[in-house]
Amino acid sequence: MLAGVTSTERRLCTSAPVDPVDPIFPGTCGEKKQQVLVSLSDPETLSGEMWMSTFSRFARPSLQWSTSAVACRALRACRSPGRAAGPLCCGPTSTQLRGQQTLGSACVPLAQHSVRSVRALDEERMMEVEWESGGLSLYPFTWLRDNCQCPLCTLDSAQARKLLMSDLDVHTGVDAVEVTNDNKVSVLWPDRHISAFDADWLKKRCFSTAARQALREELFLNERHYWDSELRVPTADYQEVLRDDQAALDWLLALRRVGVVHLTGAAAERGAVARLAERVGYLRLTFYGHTWQVQDKPMANNVAYTSGKLSLHTDYPAMHFAPGVQFLHCVSAAEEGGESEMVDGFHMAELLRREDPEAFRTLCSVHVDFTDTGTDYCDFMLQSKKSIIEVDAEGRVVRINYNNATRDSVLDLPVQQVQPFYRSIRAYVDVMNRRENVVTYKMTPGDVLTFDNWRLLHGRRKYRSRPGRTRHLEGAYLDWDEVMSRLRILRSAVQGNA
Amino acid sequence: MLAGVTSTERRLCTSAPVDPVDPIFPGTCGEKKQQVLVSLSDPETLSGEMWMSTFSRFARPSLQWSTSAVACRALRACRSPGRAAGPLCCGPTSTQLRGQQTLGSACVPLAQHSVRSVRALDEERMMEVEWESGGLSLYPFTWLRDNCQCPLCTLDSAQARKLLMSDLDVHTGVDAVEVTNDNKVSVLWPDRHISAFDADWLKKRCFSTAARQALREELFLNERHYWDSELRVPTADYQEVLRDDQAALDWLLALRRVGVVHLTGAAAERGAVARLAERVGYLRLTFYGHTWQVQDKPMANNVAYTSGKLSLHTDYPAMHFAPGVQFLHCVSAAEEGGESEMVDGFHMAELLRREDPEAFRTLCSVHVDFTDTGTDYCDFMLQSKKSIIEVDAEGRVVRINYNNATRDSVLDLPVQQVQPFYRSIRAYVDVMNRRENVVTYKMTPGDVLTFDNWRLLHGRRKYRSRPGRTRHLEGAYLDWDEVMSRLRILRSAVQGNA
Repeated sequence: MLAGVTSTERRLCTSAPVDPVDPIFPGTCGEKKQQVLVSLSDPETLSGEMWMSTFSRFARPSLQWSTSAVACRALRACRSPGRAAGPLCCGPTSTQLRGQQTLGSACVPLAQHSVRSVRALDEERMMEVEWESGGLSLYPFTWLRDNCQCPLCTLDSAQARKLLMSDLDVHTGVDAVEVTNDNKVSVLWPDRHISAFDADWLKKRCFSTAARQALREELFLNERHYWDSELRVPTADYQEVLRDDQAALDWLLALRRVGVVHLTGAAAERGAVARLAERVGYLRLTFYGHTWQVQDKPMANNVAYTSGKLSLHTDYPAMHFAPGVQFLHCVSAAEEGGESEMVDGFHMAELLRREDPEAFRTLCSVHVDFTDTGTDYCDFMLQSKKSIIEVDAEGRVVRINYNNATRDSVLDLPVQQVQPFYRSIRAYVDVMNRRENVVTYKMTPGDVLTFDNWRLLHGRRKYRSRPGRTRHLEGAYLDWDEVMSRLRILRSAVQGNA
Repeated sequence: MLAGVTSTERRLCTSAPVDPVDPIFPGTCGEKKQQVLVSLSDPETLSGEMWMSTFSRFARPSLQWSTSAVACRALRACRSPGRAAGPLCCGPTSTQLRGQQTLGSACVPLAQHSVRSVRALDEERMMEVEWESGGLSLYPFTWLRDNCQCPLCTLDSAQARKLLMSDLDVHTGVDAVEVTNDNKVSVLWPDRHISAFDADWLKKRCFSTAARQALREELFLNERHYWDSELRVPTADYQEVLRDDQAALDWLLALRRVGVVHLTGAAAERGAVARLAERVGYLRLTFYGHTWQVQDKPMANNVAYTSGKLSLHTDYPAMHFAPGVQFLHCVSAAEEGGESEMVDGFHMAELLRREDPEAFRTLCSVHVDFTDTGTDYCDFMLQSKKSIIEVDAEGRVVRINYNNATRDSVLDLPVQQVQPFYRSIRAYVDVMNRRENVVTYKMTPGDVLTFDNWRLLHGRRKYRSRPGRTRHLEGAYLDWDEVMSRLRILRSAVQGNA
């Protein structure tokens, strides 16, 4: 039985048996499996469409996330039948700058949607588009005028709006709308300005719930696949990720959705995380340097730089915007101990919400002080104040901030709320320390663990240092904005799905 | 009359006439003044304590910010009478790393508070401290055990907690509490572990509302001084900021509170912003490079890189965590046009909240898509989704995200909400474009404008480029975490007020 899932989800698991080649959870429920890695490049496992369909089975309606099924349906509605079969590429346009590169071909999407008719609904101040494929879309006049694509209104080289808000008539009417011979919609404005909109451009920006949900998922890939100790950590070859766009795309898709990908085959020397960051864009400098060396150090300025146990934590909650993504490269391993541990912090938070809603609410609402003072890249004296579990306006868990080492002794709470706060934090820690929730593994030299630092909590067991053979990991940070940017570019190059 | 203030505030202005040497607003109300700069180093104006007392008069109770007066009162309660007079330094310990430096002396604070008695309130599971200076403080047992400062529980070199949450008994009692001869409070725990706490350390962490409010303000300096077109932009000498800790501290205090400081006297060549960033810590790399050149460029990948008008905007809303601080250095100015403009986005948001609460609520709640695609440091395809006005849990405005150029044509709203959204955004833009709210000035070569990019909206008038003499600004970004870190270190060195 899968640990920590609801009875509904267990039924789902029982009634829809998991594919034997499922890359994340072993095929059987109710049995504890040894944690193994699963290759992203294995044709038996996941890539491309299969990746999405594999995960869609694990969509959890109780979390109110847009499910893959809905997103896919809406996306399919925006595609021609033939397009899903493969990318429609039309020539290599590789980009190479400062080491960051997307190697594949850029794609020019073909026109897919045709407009049957348009009409102006003057009273509602909207334009109605009837599509050849069926269905209607509505576009407010103000939005159309705001997004005129002509060179006066848009700086094409930057794909940015030139039209000023102060020059926009937010109560504008239209003089005429029509479909042109080249499948565009043309709008004549009262001041004789003319705007022309591509049918596909309009279709993509349809204001219907399904279309907006599909586009949101396409742009941000917010769906998450939750896991526990039975996770088979997605794995890929480090060198292949560097040289092949499909491999890099699969890596980042898995990193986004599962939160962790294990890369193997890097050299057992410093530099691998910097090279990997260049593949994405650029790394994020912090007070611990461009990259940082996790080793047992005298006068350690961080508990990570000792040989002691590190309890499950996210990195750098003492910064208001903690790094989104972390790379950890094993240069040399400890002979004894030092095993890595990790849990899915989002999943753990959902378990807490179910089991102890009061503790969950407390950890979402109480702003905890974190602190970090010392000297490394330069001297620093950091303070932050944030909730341990961050949720968005819809109540979805979007970030975990928790490091017991840097949680400040300053606690900005009325004294009567202190005890409930400790009870709540302990309840969350107890959930994440349950054996059925923790993935444990030992990194070997050349391994690079890449993971979502806003979501995963990671730790390590204590180890013994021996002179001449010390445990040594090199780490680096990136932010999700940069990672998602590279993911979109790769997807555009590989699948023409930008 | 000050534009846009409440009648209460006007009375405040009238009944407590502004000091003629007030650095921010001219001394008289009701009269439009020419915008001028005011020197931070002018002894007639503000620095140190005067800076705080000057601003405390402008505290706006309606915003529910902790006022300077309250913060100062509580802070004073934590200080010995003699201490406020000057720093208590005991020897130079200057730190010099990678160019970032705090030049002054580190300070060791003297003991200030004495404990008269302690007792354990076993039923409430709290320790009660009675102070020699009067008053009582309560400390929950769990919090005390969690924050034991002994070497087993705390890694002193990192000032970080070693004690694991899983090893903390969150329902612990105590066996005994006592005051020691060296003014510490000692706690004997049921497992015979002993913790000892300095009186000052405890006093600073008192859970009373006033003490917490004072410490919050000390750590984060969240008070803001709002302004309009009558602002006298605080100014300081660039070279002095580089070489003198007091000047650097005054610069950062003003940057935090007013949101903008004008530095003069830099060389009229590239490199000044990077040097200034090193003074703070490190700059933030983005897709536009480590530093970036604002010039009229062919095939501009950003509307800023043209000679056109730039309407008031914040930089980089297409990143989920936009840079917090911006430096703009004038290398060469346009012969005609190119004047800079800026407004206080927080103040403008408060005006909107008062004048058009519905528009304010809309801009706080609607998540707007921003986009930025192109190639610079490397290729990028950024997307973000955020509200234009961000407020915290208490409703205080904490960040503005608005750039009309990069606001996406994708608008993730039900179609019926589109028109109210445009009405709201236009209302905000109309408030910020009012003449009485905008500060206008022309930068000259060697000027460096430093400002809060989460708060200020800045723009420029169009200009004419002439071959051989083009307008050229060099820019760089930093984040508030780094800037506040340097500010705390400088304050510690200069005032012993860490």
